[in-house]
Amino acid sequence: MEKKEISQAVIGRLPRYFRYLGELRDEGVERISSQELSERMKVTASQIRQDLNNFGGFGQQGYGYNVEYLYVEIGKILGLDKQHNLILIGVGNLGQALVNYVNFERRGFIFRGIFDKDPQLYGTRVRGFIVRPMEELCDFIQENNIDIAVITIPKEGAVQVAEQLTNCGIKAIWNFAHVDLNVPPHVRVENVHLSDSLMKLSYNIERYEKEQELEN
Amino acid sequence: MEKKEISQAVIGRLPRYFRYLGELRDEGVERISSQELSERMKVTASQIRQDLNNFGGFGQQGYGYNVEYLYVEIGKILGLDKQHNLILIGVGNLGQALVNYVNFERRGFIFRGIFDKDPQLYGTRVRGFIVRPMEELCDFIQENNIDIAVITIPKEGAVQVAEQLTNCGIKAIWNFAHVDLNVPPHVRVENVHLSDSLMKLSYNIERYEKEQELEN
Repeated sequence: MEKKEISQAVIGRLPRYFRYLGELRDEGVERISSQELSERMKVTASQIRQDLNNFGGFGQQGYGYNVEYLYVEIGKILGLDKQHNLILIGVGNLGQALVNYVNFERRGFIFRGIFDKDPQLYGTRVRGFIVRPMEELCDFIQENNIDIAVITIPKEGAVQVAEQLTNCGIKAIWNFAHVDLNVPPHVRVENVHLSDSLMKLSYNIERYEKEQELEN
Repeated sequence: MEKKEISQAVIGRLPRYFRYLGELRDEGVERISSQELSERMKVTASQIRQDLNNFGGFGQQGYGYNVEYLYVEIGKILGLDKQHNLILIGVGNLGQALVNYVNFERRGFIFRGIFDKDPQLYGTRVRGFIVRPMEELCDFIQENNIDIAVITIPKEGAVQVAEQLTNCGIKAIWNFAHVDLNVPPHVRVENVHLSDSLMKLSYNIERYEKEQELEN
């Protein structure tokens, strides 16, 4: 299939399509109209048609979308037909939660090793993985073909670790540290800033209450 | 200060401004030009001026922004001048990580209780909080003035728990379950779909490699 430039807004919506199509597939649904998918996903049918047209349009007039085909194709676009090798840096509660999350593995994201700078943790295990010292980072990345590093350490150390990862040739960083990393463009970064998400929620509570006050 | 309708895109950027202004404040910086803030945040100065003009414009020509004032005002807009009472539902690794994260508390997000449906966990403790059964949920929310419920349970149970929370009068749900919740508009929801974030990262690795292939 032809690949063309797709906006980040559409990309941001693809995982959600992938999720719904996966559920439909698990339910044994073979095809679905944009109208039915629209009701299920609570977005307009025209949005769905526009989004999916970006990939050449999988639908046929009067037939709808082939669920299995669309699921597989979106998976390929998202790079889920390949396996990704991950390491974790920072063995706190959050890091342990991520390593233990089996759904990532089902999608082809496989943890291969875990690292921490605390010598007291060296040699202890999480889900069978032995905690390694940071000194082994570069060799491990290269020897195990690691493409994604997951950073779950306090923000103070994160910038320096990102630099180290860049020098070791990492392709991508999934960053949970509450700081913006400064890496060259060939290192892809996806941030999960939990505090920012919580602040948005707080804003929306505040706004709703303000609106209610105005109405009364 | 006047509150007017602000786009969700701007709202989405406010926590980042808040974070940078907080750092500047901690460094003892009293004022900063949009140009300097622009270099630091790696967004254009005109974007900064536009965003901050939404709130009446805190800047003065030739003077720049008053860091402390802007920090406090953005905090108010985000509802951070008020305390929020939280409960956790689902005491797995992720839930424990969130309860243990002290930075939320510093921002006024205070956990008050934790819940799980597993009877084996009742009475055990996380960070001093006793794990409570789901039967106590409604009374606890009402007696402790809880406004935010944090859901860290598998997707299978999440929709039903969200319904229960709605009936108990919760104001907001911070949802980590990998499913879209179906709640009325007065219950605000902020989703953290970790798998979706990881898929975006995978897409961006894939796209970069495709681009490299085309160039060579």
